[in-house]
Amino acid sequence: MAVYTEVPDDQMAAFVARYGIGDLLSAKGIAEGVENSNYLLRTTQGSYILTLYEKRVDPAELPFFLGLMEHLAGRGLICPVPLRDRDGAQLGRLAGRPAALVTFLDGLSVRRPGAAHCAEVGRGLALLHQAGADFAMRRVNALSVPGWRPLAEQAGAQADNVSPGLAARVMAEIERHERGWPQGLPGGVIHADLFPNNVFFIKEKLSGLIDFYFACNDAYAYDLAICLNSWCFESDFSFNLTKGQAMLAGYESVRRLEPAEVAALPELCRGSALRFLLTRLVDWLNVPPGALVKPHDPLEYDRKLAFHQRVSDAREYGLRR
Amino acid sequence: MAVYTEVPDDQMAAFVARYGIGDLLSAKGIAEGVENSNYLLRTTQGSYILTLYEKRVDPAELPFFLGLMEHLAGRGLICPVPLRDRDGAQLGRLAGRPAALVTFLDGLSVRRPGAAHCAEVGRGLALLHQAGADFAMRRVNALSVPGWRPLAEQAGAQADNVSPGLAARVMAEIERHERGWPQGLPGGVIHADLFPNNVFFIKEKLSGLIDFYFACNDAYAYDLAICLNSWCFESDFSFNLTKGQAMLAGYESVRRLEPAEVAALPELCRGSALRFLLTRLVDWLNVPPGALVKPHDPLEYDRKLAFHQRVSDAREYGLRR
Repeated sequence: MAVYTEVPDDQMAAFVARYGIGDLLSAKGIAEGVENSNYLLRTTQGSYILTLYEKRVDPAELPFFLGLMEHLAGRGLICPVPLRDRDGAQLGRLAGRPAALVTFLDGLSVRRPGAAHCAEVGRGLALLHQAGADFAMRRVNALSVPGWRPLAEQAGAQADNVSPGLAARVMAEIERHERGWPQGLPGGVIHADLFPNNVFFIKEKLSGLIDFYFACNDAYAYDLAICLNSWCFESDFSFNLTKGQAMLAGYESVRRLEPAEVAALPELCRGSALRFLLTRLVDWLNVPPGALVKPHDPLEYDRKLAFHQRVSDAREYGLRR
Repeated sequence: MAVYTEVPDDQMAAFVARYGIGDLLSAKGIAEGVENSNYLLRTTQGSYILTLYEKRVDPAELPFFLGLMEHLAGRGLICPVPLRDRDGAQLGRLAGRPAALVTFLDGLSVRRPGAAHCAEVGRGLALLHQAGADFAMRRVNALSVPGWRPLAEQAGAQADNVSPGLAARVMAEIERHERGWPQGLPGGVIHADLFPNNVFFIKEKLSGLIDFYFACNDAYAYDLAICLNSWCFESDFSFNLTKGQAMLAGYESVRRLEPAEVAALPELCRGSALRFLLTRLVDWLNVPPGALVKPHDPLEYDRKLAFHQRVSDAREYGLRR
């Protein structure tokens, strides 16, 4: 992981004692979450995840994320539930950092999802959209269209060192979306980062959704576009229509897409591919020399983008109408 | 951690299925053990640690370490127990590496041990020595006197860049020990690395000993000297006699030291301080540029060595006679 805060045993025990979850039995720093430090705790009552928020997370946004997880769990979604300490606070401080304790979820993330996993994720995403519909807090999606040009400018001409012509390809996409991004679609709270590493399964059954630190208010179908991008392509960047069908059918088993969403889907897939291309590109160009953490390859999303540029109808992603 | 092997979920599940410990529910890479990759697993039956041995461990030595842990656990010592797969093997292969599955131990390692912890460790160390007495396999201590000169030569004149005069100080100690290292002391299997991070406690009660990958055959009192060095100094390198008394009394509550061991203790403390000074020095001089893992400061043991050079009697460590 990129950052890691060590917490002395006595401070850890004192922190846990505030939550009334029994005596601390063990605490293991886990290699999960590049952005934050995470510990898997066992107490006499159960297992929990302790997160210390490192500098890439804005502390002012934590009440939204923690409040959302509590709200979603209260509506029956399987996600980590932030615990409240004896003063009723979800957010504490430990080792000089904002810190929170959440329930532990069993499950494994799948490296190579099959169609059954995609169906489960589609269904789980729709359940998340339903469960979040009456959440009172709001958070703007900082990584939607208005955020893309500044990212491209940060990468600048260096983009062409990653792949020839990339800077121009990216700028043409940004201009297109700035002109004609779909507006007025049904929306609410979206996960915005539901990649395979953020979904747990036990066998082929979804057992939990994690990592809500990109959650925000945006179009529901944009969240689905992010999932089509991150679950339904093969490692050679070919699109697996069977997986797309499974995911879309899973989603629609809970919430049917409206005609405007269906019409917008190719454009939303194209935009979400650009969004991950841009953030990965900036990370890729900013790796400190000698760093042990290898960033994700931005070109994976350049290839996916090329696929979406040739799509004109949601049926090409597997939507059955 | 320095090295980390990622194991795909399907390979992990297939590996675990060989051990008859139920279905895999979760697997978290843990930030423990600089030398190997470790995962904390939960199955429908319990919790386990999966270790993938990275290149610093010689696979030919693994049967000694795994056999020892099984032997010690069978004698009642609280340590990880290596599981045997359906073919009776303790050692498997996973993601191209030798791999073993051991039982999980609850407990936390203490950052600032008190006298009560030192008493527990002294007692635990003596129990380990008793439990290992009839273990049939043998392993030479590669980091005893004959191993020190090659380490000093590896550091060479660069030692003086770490601290002026260090190369000469180290060489004088090596020559002293090559001439007069205590011989013929009672011995058997020793842990050889029982630092605070390798001992778990629940409250002030010892709950387990881990990390047997330096275990070998050597003098019991040398193991005690290693513990006096790693548990009984304060952060300003002053020796805490109360902790020394507690540790020695704890040890002798199980196994009384013989007169020859008592007489040799100052020399053994001096030698074990040199041993950790040397390995830390070599690691310190070989950090790859930009590495995220900071090696231990070798000068901590230079300071401890200076303390031992002025000791002439085991009573100065707190032995009551």
